[in-house]
Parts: sequence; structure tokens; C-alpha cells
Amino acid sequence: MAKVGDDMKNIKVGLLGCGTVGTGVAKMLLVNGELIQKRLGTGLELKYVADTDTRTDRGIDFADGVFVDDAFKVVADPEVDIIIEMIGGESVAKALILQAFENGKHVVTANKALLAKHGNELVRAAAGKKVDLAYEASVGGCMPIIKTLREALIGNNIAKITGILNGTCNYILTKITNEGISFEEALADAQTGGYAEADPGLDVDGLDAAHKLAILGALAYGMRINFDDIYIEGISKITPLDIQFAGQFGYRIKLLAISKNTGEKVEARVHPTMIPVDNILSNVDGTLNAVSITGDAVGEIFLSGHGAGMMPTASAVISDTVDIARNLLSGSRTDRIPTMGYQAAKVRKIPVMSIDELVTHYYFRFEALDEPGVLSKISGILGDFQISLKTVHQMGRRTNGSVPVVMLTHYAREADVKNALAEINGLNVVENDPVVIRIEDKNNKY
Amino acid sequence: MAKVGDDMKNIKVGLLGCGTVGTGVAKMLLVNGELIQKRLGTGLELKYVADTDTRTDRGIDFADGVFVDDAFKVVADPEVDIIIEMIGGESVAKALILQAFENGKHVVTANKALLAKHGNELVRAAAGKKVDLAYEASVGGCMPIIKTLREALIGNNIAKITGILNGTCNYILTKITNEGISFEEALADAQTGGYAEADPGLDVDGLDAAHKLAILGALAYGMRINFDDIYIEGISKITPLDIQFAGQFGYRIKLLAISKNTGEKVEARVHPTMIPVDNILSNVDGTLNAVSITGDAVGEIFLSGHGAGMMPTASAVISDTVDIARNLLSGSRTDRIPTMGYQAAKVRKIPVMSIDELVTHYYFRFEALDEPGVLSKISGILGDFQISLKTVHQMGRRTNGSVPVVMLTHYAREADVKNALAEINGLNVVENDPVVIRIEDKNNKY
Repeated sequence: MAKVGDDMKNIKVGLLGCGTVGTGVAKMLLVNGELIQKRLGTGLELKYVADTDTRTDRGIDFADGVFVDDAFKVVADPEVDIIIEMIGGESVAKALILQAFENGKHVVTANKALLAKHGNELVRAAAGKKVDLAYEASVGGCMPIIKTLREALIGNNIAKITGILNGTCNYILTKITNEGISFEEALADAQTGGYAEADPGLDVDGLDAAHKLAILGALAYGMRINFDDIYIEGISKITPLDIQFAGQFGYRIKLLAISKNTGEKVEARVHPTMIPVDNILSNVDGTLNAVSITGDAVGEIFLSGHGAGMMPTASAVISDTVDIARNLLSGSRTDRIPTMGYQAAKVRKIPVMSIDELVTHYYFRFEALDEPGVLSKISGILGDFQISLKTVHQMGRRTNGSVPVVMLTHYAREADVKNALAEINGLNVVENDPVVIRIEDKNNKY
Repeated sequence: MAKVGDDMKNIKVGLLGCGTVGTGVAKMLLVNGELIQKRLGTGLELKYVADTDTRTDRGIDFADGVFVDDAFKVVADPEVDIIIEMIGGESVAKALILQAFENGKHVVTANKALLAKHGNELVRAAAGKKVDLAYEASVGGCMPIIKTLREALIGNNIAKITGILNGTCNYILTKITNEGISFEEALADAQTGGYAEADPGLDVDGLDAAHKLAILGALAYGMRINFDDIYIEGISKITPLDIQFAGQFGYRIKLLAISKNTGEKVEARVHPTMIPVDNILSNVDGTLNAVSITGDAVGEIFLSGHGAGMMPTASAVISDTVDIARNLLSGSRTDRIPTMGYQAAKVRKIPVMSIDELVTHYYFRFEALDEPGVLSKISGILGDFQISLKTVHQMGRRTNGSVPVVMLTHYAREADVKNALAEINGLNVVENDPVVIRIEDKNNKY
């Protein structure tokens, strides 16, 4: 291993997993290696690339002995300083990372699912061995969101994070918005274009965005990573009709990951959300990601960029790798910055607020029977549950006996909304379940 | 001074200058001190605040002996680890910074004018004494633009930086755009609201934005800081009429700082610029700052936030201070990251392209005499200079005998534009000098 202060010697890197992003990392180290050396002062030497798929041509001419099929051999090599884990998934990746720690190696990963579910254990394991675990690429691709929260905003109490953290969902919603096609058509288009997986559930069901939100919330507030308590709703029920109606009220629909620090509890939720068209997030389209952070000193700051893809993600991986290399070269102890931004002893378990306690504005769309008295029945029940309406619109007639009725509420409690809608459903004056979309207005309380 | 590895002892900070931002820094250290300690692991102790104005009430209750009127006493105190220079200006600030280096102290500054003009000397002096010079707050206020260029984008060749880097100009242009008032009226409004200085030249003439651009270009391309060769044009000639016409062609006018790496030379220019309304920068309004960076791996990334003001700027100062404190606490040598992002030996003198060599799209507005043949004379001369027109519009009649004629060009060379306009001016078919505004389209070559 490179010794502290031994800055004439290359830092040796072992890359585990040579799929899309892994290939991007290898390419960047090779193609931009000279540039990195001009900045870092030392080369990053790609000693190993490990992948069980030894047949695919990655378009890279690896020197003899670099490409291997056994990742455990790489984490066992005493010469390797930094492991870059690009395998993904949970079991093998976790075992390799823990073994790398055990062998005193620093680890860079983009594995948000692993961090969201096993992050607390990994953070403890890294601290126990005094090695670094870096994960800039796990959230927001090339955007330096981890660095911004962990370093740039160090003096700020973070009040709120609002992000578009899944490019697949943003691409699909942009398609539905611009072309008026259905979710299914937009998903098929995204799959054809390579923007969605064959099995798209992790993305379109909101899980991937929630993995990322779990990481950001922990960093922002000094809380343990808590993925299980995040409220998650995907985009598969979003229709062009609701997007069109949203537009009429001055809103666009985005899959937002929202985290707010309300003092004793935090809000943590991922769901399709209406935001005003003049909110900067509403103009982040296609596969782009973006995040807005509110801190007590900075007010609001905003970042956007490519949240996925070979080279943007590789860029974040290299940033982490260089940060670790700088620690090694400058003789820094490796606990220079605590993994989750707070000193371990100060990290608390902060409860996540149940979605039932949420107080926000709502959009409802009912397929109401075209009969006298229906509107008054619906609004009467809403009133019984203290849900007060800002606007009620009957959006034009349909042929099948029901008409779309759209209502926007003042602040209402989610539990009251659920109960009221259940009662309305029991009335036999509406067809199908009502559509409910939460609204994030500028004037929201946090 | 705190010793390397001595992490139980507070890091001692000396603050020079207690004006707006200095007061913000002091407040942040006091009010958010506990938060910073939870993250850093150690307190930042404000040992001194030096200001010659000892009378103004800053709303802070300093302990005995903290507030002093002699800044040189602070940089001489062997106990002080980090100097925060918030005095501004060039002579005293420079002398204090050099003395601090001499005494082995690290320095944090927001002084962009000083860095733009004397940065190369300061960088050398810091390197000579192996101390850090940190300057995140010098560009873009709270936005971590320095950290992004110096750390997050380490693996990227930077091709282009486009920024709204002066909040005063952006406020004034936003006012003119939204209210149709004159530059003079908008400036007066900005002065009343505290968004412009009584002597507004540094801002509205584009100098402040150019100071910042000089810093960013050096960081991005590994070139020596070169303020003198930046082309600078302010906003005082921008009229509501041109903003209105810009809108009709789908553009908005912003004071942009533009830097492009074209290989052997760099472009570096600050001037009012027309950008398409769907460019994310065109929706950055009021006093907000924003920057878009294009790198070969990340594509484009975008940051926005408050570029000035007491607490946003203080946030960036504290970020720098904590970075240095982390070096001290973790035992890192202080050349962990080179001041200007590249190893000193790799920093080159890269020539800045003369504005005459610029090739871009142009907007011209002529006050043309309302006579037959005028348009053909103008366009004939433009053609003689290889300036080809995309559109020509006569924008409605005026009463004083001249009519506004607006032309948008295809790519043209600045030198040709100057020569053609000089010849047109000599024709006596136009009143006053023509208005020339450069256009930065999405399809610009870089």
C-alpha cells in the first residue's frame, strides 16, 4: 500500500464490477489520467478490474493481469489502496466492501440500495478500521450533492431537501407532459431509449429515489440512515389528464423526494408532487436530476446535472477516489471527515413522521356521477373532516355518465384526507378511486 | 497554534474586518457553533475580531479582549491558527494576508478583487510558507463553485463556464425586464433596496463579475490568473426596448461571465448577453447567482444560490475554515489540495483570445432613417464584411423620423462587426450608434 507522505508513488486502485459505470471509471482513469495527475500530483493506477463477465468488449485495452474474474482477489491484494465497488446489488457487494475494510482499504461506491439498507453497519465497520467509505456517486450522479451537504453547508442547519433524484421517472413524466401519452407508452419509450430497465420497478415505484433520500436525510440532520420509514409512492398512476389539469392550475408534476427537519421528527417522502411552474425544479426535464437545499444561512441553493449514465457517474466516483488519494498523500488520518457528516457520537435516531401526520395542500380528481347533489355530498364529507377547499372545478363533460371534478385544498392532514375519501368512495356517487396528488407550494410551511 | 493531531483543543480563528460579511461570520461561529462542533468534532474559537470601527453595534456580545482595533496584532498572535480576511480592498488586506502567511497562518478570504489582481503572487506566497489560502466565498457567495471545480470535477476537462456572477446587475436587469423601467430607474431602486452601492461602478460596469471569472478560469484550465485580458462590458446601456425585442425573438438579457477553453487560447468575457428563454440561466432572477459548467465527463452541471449577503457569504467562509481545520486536526500536510486546483508546476500562462477574434451570433438595433434604400445599404455593408443575417425586422414606426431596425446574424467575427458598423455609422442613414448585443445560443460551437 502507498505509505503516508509517499507522494511520488502512484495510488493503486482496484475496480470491482465493469458494467456501464465501472467501464466509465476505467475509461476516465485511462483517458483523463494525465489531467488527474496534473491536479492531484500523483497518478491513480488502475491495478485491477474485476468482473465475472470476461467476454464483453468494453473498448478498453487493459494491460496483462489487470482484468481478473475474482473480485475477492482484488480486495486481498496488499498493494491496492482504494477499492471502487461498482457491482451493485446487496450481498456480494456488501461482502466485498466489508472484506476491503477488514484489509485496511478505503472504498468508493455508488451503491445507494446497499447504503440505504445496510449503511449504518457499513459506516460502523469503516470507522472500526479507520478507513474511508465514500459515496458521492450514490446520489445525483455527477452533482456534488454529498460534498455540498457534508462540506460546503457545514455551518448550516438544514431545514429542507427537495429533489428530483430519479432520471427514469423524470424522463417518463416529461414524456407524458410533453406528448400527452400514457404512463405505459412513456415507459416503453424509455425502455427503448435505454432510460429504463426491462424490470423498471426500482425506478418507477420510487424505491431508487427513496434510497437516495435516506442517505441525504442522514447527512443533513445527523440521523441514522432510515430507509424503512420513508413513505414511497411511484409514478405508475400518473395520467396525461392529471398533468393537463395540473397545468391549468399552474403546476407541473414531478416525482419529488422531500425531506424536512421539523424539529423532533423529520418528514421523508417520495411521491408524485405538483409544484408551481415557476419553481426551478419544475423546469428540470428529461433524465436530469436536481436538488434544492434550504439551510438557515444560505437560504436555498440549487444543483442540477446528469444523475446517471456512464461518464457523469464516473466523474463522481473519481472525485471520491481523489479525495481519498489526497488524504493518503498528505498524511491525513482517514477520519478527516466523518462518513455521514457528523461525528459518530453525535448521530441520533430521529423518528420519521408518519405520512398520516403530513399537512399539505392536495389535488383531488373525482369521476363524479353527472347527477344533481353529487358535488355537495363530496364537499360536505370533506368539510366534516376539516378539509377546506381552495377551488372546485368541473372539468367538462364526459360521455360515460361521469365527469371529472377537480378540487384543490387548503392545508389538510393526510389522515383526514384518507378517511374522507374512504367515506366518499362508499357513497356510490363516484366511479373508481379518486386521484390524490400532494402539492408542494412555495408557501408551504417548511 | 493548535498542533497536528491535537484534536481536543479548539481551533483558534482571527477575524479581520467586521462589516456585513465579517459580522455574519462572527454570528455563524457563535450561533451555529455547537452544530459545527458536532460535525467537525472540535470547536472553532473566535479569538479575535479586528476592526477600526469600534463603535458600530453589530448585535454581538463579544467577550473581553476579543474585539480589537489592530488587525496586525491578530496576525502576529502565535495562538491564532486561521485568519479570516473580510476587510476587502487591496492594500491593507494584501499586507495582512502576506504577514499572516509569514507567520505560518492559513487564510480564508472573500476578496475577489485582490485575488483577480494579486492572486498569482498570493498563491506563490502561501505555497512558499506551506499554508492554505482558501477563497470559496470570493465567487458565487454560498454556492460551492470553487469546491465543485477544484474537487468534484477533478476528472473533467472543463470546456466552458457560463455564469451570472453579480447579483446587483442581475437585480437591475430583472427589474428592467419585469417593469420596463430604465437602467437609471432600476439602479436607483437597487440602491434604495440595498442591492447596489452608492458608487455602483464595480458592479454595473462588469468589473466584479470579471474578477470572479478570472478566478474560475484559472481553476478550470490550470492557467495563471489573468484579469487584465478579460473583455468587460457593463449593463448601463441596456434599455427596456432591447429587452422587449429580445423577448420577441425568444431571448432574455443577462450579464454573463463566459469562459471557454478552445485549446491554445481561452475566451474570457463579461458582457450583456442574449440567451434563449429555455436556457436555465435565463430564469435566474433578482439577486441570485448561478453558474453552468461544461465538462467532458459530466456534460453540463448547474448551481444557483445567493451570491452575496451576510449569511450566504459567511456560510462559504465557514466551509473554507472548516476544511482548513480538518487538515490541522487530521494531521494532513497543508498542500492537500493545490490552491488553484493544479500542481504549481503544471500551471501555465494560457493566452486569452482577443474579443476581435470572437465568433458568435449578434443582435443589432439601428435607428434607421425612414427612407427608401436604407435597409439595402446597411445589409449591403454587412454582406461586404461576411456578416450574414438570419432575420431582419423593422419594429414599428417612430415619430422622430427614424425606425428601429433589428437584425440577428449568423456566426460573425467581432472584428468584422466593428468594421462594418463603423462604415454604416459613416453613411448618415442611421441615428446614434447601433446597439450591439452578443447572443449565446444553445448551438454555439462550445
